[in-house]
Amino acid sequence: MTSISGRHFLQIPGPTNVPERVLRAIDSATIDHRGPEFQKLGQEVLSGLKHVFKTKAPVVIFPASGTGAWEAALVNTLSPDDRVLMVETGHFATLWHSMAKKLGLAPEFISGDWRHGVDLVTVEARLAADKSHSIKAVCVVHNETSTGVTSRIGEVRKAIDRAHHPALYMVDTISSLASIDYRHDEWGVDVTVAGSQKGLMLPPGLSFNAVSDKALAAAKTSKLPKSYWSWEEMLGPNKNGFFPYTPATNLLYGLRASLNMLLEEGLDNVFKRHDRHAEATRRAVRAWGLEILCLNPAEYSSSLTAVLIPQGHSEADFRKVVLDNFNMSLGQGLGKVAGKVFRIGHLGDFNDLMLIGTLAGVEMGLELAGVPHKKRGVAMAMEYLTEGASKSKPAVKLNAA
Amino acid sequence: MTSISGRHFLQIPGPTNVPERVLRAIDSATIDHRGPEFQKLGQEVLSGLKHVFKTKAPVVIFPASGTGAWEAALVNTLSPDDRVLMVETGHFATLWHSMAKKLGLAPEFISGDWRHGVDLVTVEARLAADKSHSIKAVCVVHNETSTGVTSRIGEVRKAIDRAHHPALYMVDTISSLASIDYRHDEWGVDVTVAGSQKGLMLPPGLSFNAVSDKALAAAKTSKLPKSYWSWEEMLGPNKNGFFPYTPATNLLYGLRASLNMLLEEGLDNVFKRHDRHAEATRRAVRAWGLEILCLNPAEYSSSLTAVLIPQGHSEADFRKVVLDNFNMSLGQGLGKVAGKVFRIGHLGDFNDLMLIGTLAGVEMGLELAGVPHKKRGVAMAMEYLTEGASKSKPAVKLNAA
Amino acid sequence: MTSISGRHFLQIPGPTNVPERVLRAIDSATIDHRGPEFQKLGQEVLSGLKHVFKTKAPVVIFPASGTGAWEAALVNTLSPDDRVLMVETGHFATLWHSMAKKLGLAPEFISGDWRHGVDLVTVEARLAADKSHSIKAVCVVHNETSTGVTSRIGEVRKAIDRAHHPALYMVDTISSLASIDYRHDEWGVDVTVAGSQKGLMLPPGLSFNAVSDKALAAAKTSKLPKSYWSWEEMLGPNKNGFFPYTPATNLLYGLRASLNMLLEEGLDNVFKRHDRHAEATRRAVRAWGLEILCLNPAEYSSSLTAVLIPQGHSEADFRKVVLDNFNMSLGQGLGKVAGKVFRIGHLGDFNDLMLIGTLAGVEMGLELAGVPHKKRGVAMAMEYLTEGASKSKPAVKLNAA
Amino acid sequence: MTSISGRHFLQIPGPTNVPERVLRAIDSATIDHRGPEFQKLGQEVLSGLKHVFKTKAPVVIFPASGTGAWEAALVNTLSPDDRVLMVETGHFATLWHSMAKKLGLAPEFISGDWRHGVDLVTVEARLAADKSHSIKAVCVVHNETSTGVTSRIGEVRKAIDRAHHPALYMVDTISSLASIDYRHDEWGVDVTVAGSQKGLMLPPGLSFNAVSDKALAAAKTSKLPKSYWSWEEMLGPNKNGFFPYTPATNLLYGLRASLNMLLEEGLDNVFKRHDRHAEATRRAVRAWGLEILCLNPAEYSSSLTAVLIPQGHSEADFRKVVLDNFNMSLGQGLGKVAGKVFRIGHLGDFNDLMLIGTLAGVEMGLELAGVPHKKRGVAMAMEYLTEGASKSKPAVKLNAA
Repeated sequence: MTSISGRHFLQIPGPTNVPERVLRAIDSATIDHRGPEFQKLGQEVLSGLKHVFKTKAPVVIFPASGTGAWEAALVNTLSPDDRVLMVETGHFATLWHSMAKKLGLAPEFISGDWRHGVDLVTVEARLAADKSHSIKAVCVVHNETSTGVTSRIGEVRKAIDRAHHPALYMVDTISSLASIDYRHDEWGVDVTVAGSQKGLMLPPGLSFNAVSDKALAAAKTSKLPKSYWSWEEMLGPNKNGFFPYTPATNLLYGLRASLNMLLEEGLDNVFKRHDRHAEATRRAVRAWGLEILCLNPAEYSSSLTAVLIPQGHSEADFRKVVLDNFNMSLGQGLGKVAGKVFRIGHLGDFNDLMLIGTLAGVEMGLELAGVPHKKRGVAMAMEYLTEGASKSKPAVKLNAA
Repeated sequence: MTSISGRHFLQIPGPTNVPERVLRAIDSATIDHRGPEFQKLGQEVLSGLKHVFKTKAPVVIFPASGTGAWEAALVNTLSPDDRVLMVETGHFATLWHSMAKKLGLAPEFISGDWRHGVDLVTVEARLAADKSHSIKAVCVVHNETSTGVTSRIGEVRKAIDRAHHPALYMVDTISSLASIDYRHDEWGVDVTVAGSQKGLMLPPGLSFNAVSDKALAAAKTSKLPKSYWSWEEMLGPNKNGFFPYTPATNLLYGLRASLNMLLEEGLDNVFKRHDRHAEATRRAVRAWGLEILCLNPAEYSSSLTAVLIPQGHSEADFRKVVLDNFNMSLGQGLGKVAGKVFRIGHLGDFNDLMLIGTLAGVEMGLELAGVPHKKRGVAMAMEYLTEGASKSKPAVKLNAA
Repeated sequence: MTSISGRHFLQIPGPTNVPERVLRAIDSATIDHRGPEFQKLGQEVLSGLKHVFKTKAPVVIFPASGTGAWEAALVNTLSPDDRVLMVETGHFATLWHSMAKKLGLAPEFISGDWRHGVDLVTVEARLAADKSHSIKAVCVVHNETSTGVTSRIGEVRKAIDRAHHPALYMVDTISSLASIDYRHDEWGVDVTVAGSQKGLMLPPGLSFNAVSDKALAAAKTSKLPKSYWSWEEMLGPNKNGFFPYTPATNLLYGLRASLNMLLEEGLDNVFKRHDRHAEATRRAVRAWGLEILCLNPAEYSSSLTAVLIPQGHSEADFRKVVLDNFNMSLGQGLGKVAGKVFRIGHLGDFNDLMLIGTLAGVEMGLELAGVPHKKRGVAMAMEYLTEGASKSKPAVKLNAA
Repeated sequence: MTSISGRHFLQIPGPTNVPERVLRAIDSATIDHRGPEFQKLGQEVLSGLKHVFKTKAPVVIFPASGTGAWEAALVNTLSPDDRVLMVETGHFATLWHSMAKKLGLAPEFISGDWRHGVDLVTVEARLAADKSHSIKAVCVVHNETSTGVTSRIGEVRKAIDRAHHPALYMVDTISSLASIDYRHDEWGVDVTVAGSQKGLMLPPGLSFNAVSDKALAAAKTSKLPKSYWSWEEMLGPNKNGFFPYTPATNLLYGLRASLNMLLEEGLDNVFKRHDRHAEATRRAVRAWGLEILCLNPAEYSSSLTAVLIPQGHSEADFRKVVLDNFNMSLGQGLGKVAGKVFRIGHLGDFNDLMLIGTLAGVEMGLELAGVPHKKRGVAMAMEYLTEGASKSKPAVKLNAA
């Protein structure tokens, strides 16, 4: 790792800054994954996850990146050439769509401008038009990590219902879970996809599927080949806290710690904190005179903010200046917005002063990189944070060793 | 974790005892997986792995358990209904065979007695009989973790060659790599499958495919659906030290540390150490009057020893006595030998006194559990270790902070 | 640190093997030693220590080695040229005596053969003869780390009482506290001296004085210069959990963890465990045909066993053979027994299999070093441990992250 | 520790934010302090420290807080009733003076206003007046942690020389070493006192004396009682990398890591970084309209800035607001300036964005606490940092595991 003085500011929209408590938990001796001590760990994390997904359904844990959980959602429920309705909200939606094609599905991709979330009207219309119910699943991304735009998952559910369409509903919450309010059960989601390295504050290496009864039923007839990702093989041993193949034990230690931290802070407080930091960031962006990629305030992301770099300037150069001078990593533009935006992650284990440090790094970086801007961004963020500070005062909680 | 006094003896045949140095490396802040510091890490581990696999071919790293690397080997190279020749050496060979069926392949399974390695004559005969070359791959397990029996991988290669058969050759080295000599290039293996949690001394969560040119060529025409496991998507970014999706960064920190440790000890010394501990273990087993599952001395495993429990006695009860009284985990019998054997892992980060502690736990456990045995096992192992000690004296190496 | 494979066996009689849980606790961000979070920590450890010393009196914590706590005991209570009765039980008693001289006291040293504990009759006679009560303190070592001999602290108290002598009673428990039963209040000790790196299972760097009312009263008139070691300056801030100068915060994190571990195991179980391992060790020593330094079975130490090396053999060479071949550190002979004994530490975070590994390292080392011995030491220890195993079965306790 | 989200900002002027790399080094198994591996560690840190003190003289390491190293400096060199010239630069100079009295010395205390460093003229005059050379030592504090005022150590040396006075020259560098340029040899200092928890970026628990030949000579005739602190006992074993009593092994692991980090960054770069952050902080303070305690710009501290709280406002309340709302610890006013100042630590493992976070916490805290101020402090600091950024660009260095 670098010997640059001080803490690195990891302000990409994930992986996020892993708290010491989680890192220390991971730094424990690996145990027998078939023994009684592991069983207790397994039961604890499998149960604790339900709280975070707001579900009573099983949550499956894969030793894999989030990309693996995308694949698991598809291969467990679908069959070759199945039609899937997907929505182009950004780079990750596009990658999921590509994956669906590679896996032999027939995805339909509702195009988008990467500045809005899922268009409810189009989805409803498309489903309503599918009289034969040949569309087997609707797949959307809750929070587009490439754009900082959220989609209204509960509203999409209503659109599907209005179309009286039986398609499975699958949602990627990789960069929203445990940062932005999400309700697997209430919103009638069939498969929720998530990963460890964002709001769950873990290193990458775990991913998740929350699975509804309807999805489980679909799995029984699904014909895409599956083995590693098979829910069926997972759910049996999971009932007793075990796994069908060697689990990523040490990351599960970290998961136990992070679930405890979320419980201690309270999910609602976690969401409020993310909302507040996101709003402070947007005020800074506006003060700089820069443009937020997300056009609809109702769809602003509380996890990250993507900012358009003024034309004629290079976001890569800008980010390099920030990294070299201020020891901070920002997110690059991806896919269609490559070269056009940089992204500020403000999710995970984060607080007001880390945010101000982050925004200061952006503001000073803009200056050093010669990107035209006004200077009052940090000041505006501070003003906003100060106003809200007393209302959002964190409760101190203590942790025995 | 338990508060039982002293170190737990994790003597299942993997996950193995993770060295402090590896745990501490993992306990580092997660970094930007698209930044220059990660790039150096990526290049270092991708290159260092080749040394361990004894190959010049690329080694692909998956954020997944070893089971995932099995799947990757199959889905990258094969097409639905392809015939695959597999050999029933034990439980893990059986699981791999089941996976092949689940993935839509048509595996043929040469039956075995779980006490021998791959039978060379049968393999050669079977391939010679396949005049049409409809068999696309031969899949074997180098070291059967369920039985403590190795197969002679170089000899299998020769058998394939004698049959003039073009099938791909795939080898599972999950519990042999970095413990028992293995030579991807010299032995003409096309896909080598490995995992992090055995000889590499890491927690579970990483797995590997070493991939020959012939395997890469096969990947171009393979029709099994693939995305997460796709070599093609991996190899592009890997050239620059990057990955197509978020890698398990912190486990890669651990991998860097473990590769350095293997380099410092020297692979040949590592193999000798494992051979020596395995021989000491077998001498103990014989002294106890118990039977080693592996029948052919040329196929003894240096990673683990599976021991038959005398009839009328429960291996589960025995292992529970050992765990409850001596804070040691032993491996259970799996599959066809469930209830019939227990397994002693003696691989990974291990030394003479840990081995004696391990064997003492077995010997005292046999006594407490009322399993008939003679008592001179530990004494015989000590005698053997003492004889060989001066020859195998470890070199002290120092590690700067 | 060394890259020798496997865990080092640290079997000197302290520092002891620090449990992972303690190391991880120490590996936490340092906090403001004047803030509320520290206060809670301070209160917790200051209170928890009383349980371990079996006292209601205050226990003072110094950021210092045990040697510092010796000095603190003397400079807080005594004045230049004060007479102090000390007993030559071994090297550490001798060092404490040297220190007393250096500090300007007039210690009287009852000579000893380093193979027995404090002679009660001599102490009583010496005190009875001191009609003028010019002796201000009696200082003894509970467990002589250099010899493996304990003194009967409660009996010494009675001897002092029989002599109707008002001297302060000071006891060094550096290598006994939290390993061998010790009762500050019940035994009427005025100052108990202890350190972190033995039974408390911490790295070195903390030391302790438990201080009776009588000792506190003596401190008011003591004239030896003192500042860093001053109890008076400590006790004020300690009342609120704080310290008069910067405390060794991170070691206090470790102390909190170790106090919790001792509480979870139960002090009585901790003592029984040490007794059992000590007895097993002595049976091994006798089986080897070697001689235990301690001559009186009533004074055997449960923390360590000092063993005489047969004449004509070098204990230094023997220990080097053990270190080089078996990655184990044993204690050297110190002071008058330098070159004559080696010491086996069996205290702290320890268990049966670690003990057998330790004894095997000694037995195999004797063989390699050409030291005459019989071979049944390990076997005898195993026999003893097996007999007692079911009675001493450790309870599994679980620890949340 | 707290479960408040995000990193705590530990901006007291020490202990400082301990870097992960140091914490991880400390989190290693304790080793035999009499063995060959320890010897290498001992030699490495004892030698490496000389570079940081800029000396060829021995540097003694005590397992103790900085307060202990004060005591060591005095008791090793002086005799009861010796006259010592000390200068009241602030709270810590006052504590050192109190200690000298407690130890039986006869210190003379040149009074000061706590807003200036050592007055050269007064020191010279006082020494020149001491014709009999009854003053045995001049003791000053390089950087007053309570006031943020430095003294010009090289100039004090010249004043002593101009007075042709043979007194020993002792300097406390507890909060300057490895943060502000310091030159033990060049400045003719006889005893330099330092601690681990400031610029050396370690947890508290180690302290240091760099000792000139003249100081060593004085030690031979010094009559203050000494044992734990005795240089003589230290220097013998130190020659071989060992210590006369159990050293704080794990903190020495951390010291090795921190010495490597300082070497990698380069001491001159370390000093420039501290200067820059101090100047940025002062610009912020001035912009807020608040007053810096230090009155002489030539004596500004680069480690910390003490700021006067406007009359009628409570610095304690202010700091509580900052801690409760922003998870940041600031230094309180101590001694004569208790209630009048708060202190901002900007030393140790620190960088630009951490500084901006820190200053933002102060600025927002002032607002929330109702302390009158102007709002442009953070903005001014950012402007200054931006100007200097390209010149002070940190070099990336990489650290293998």
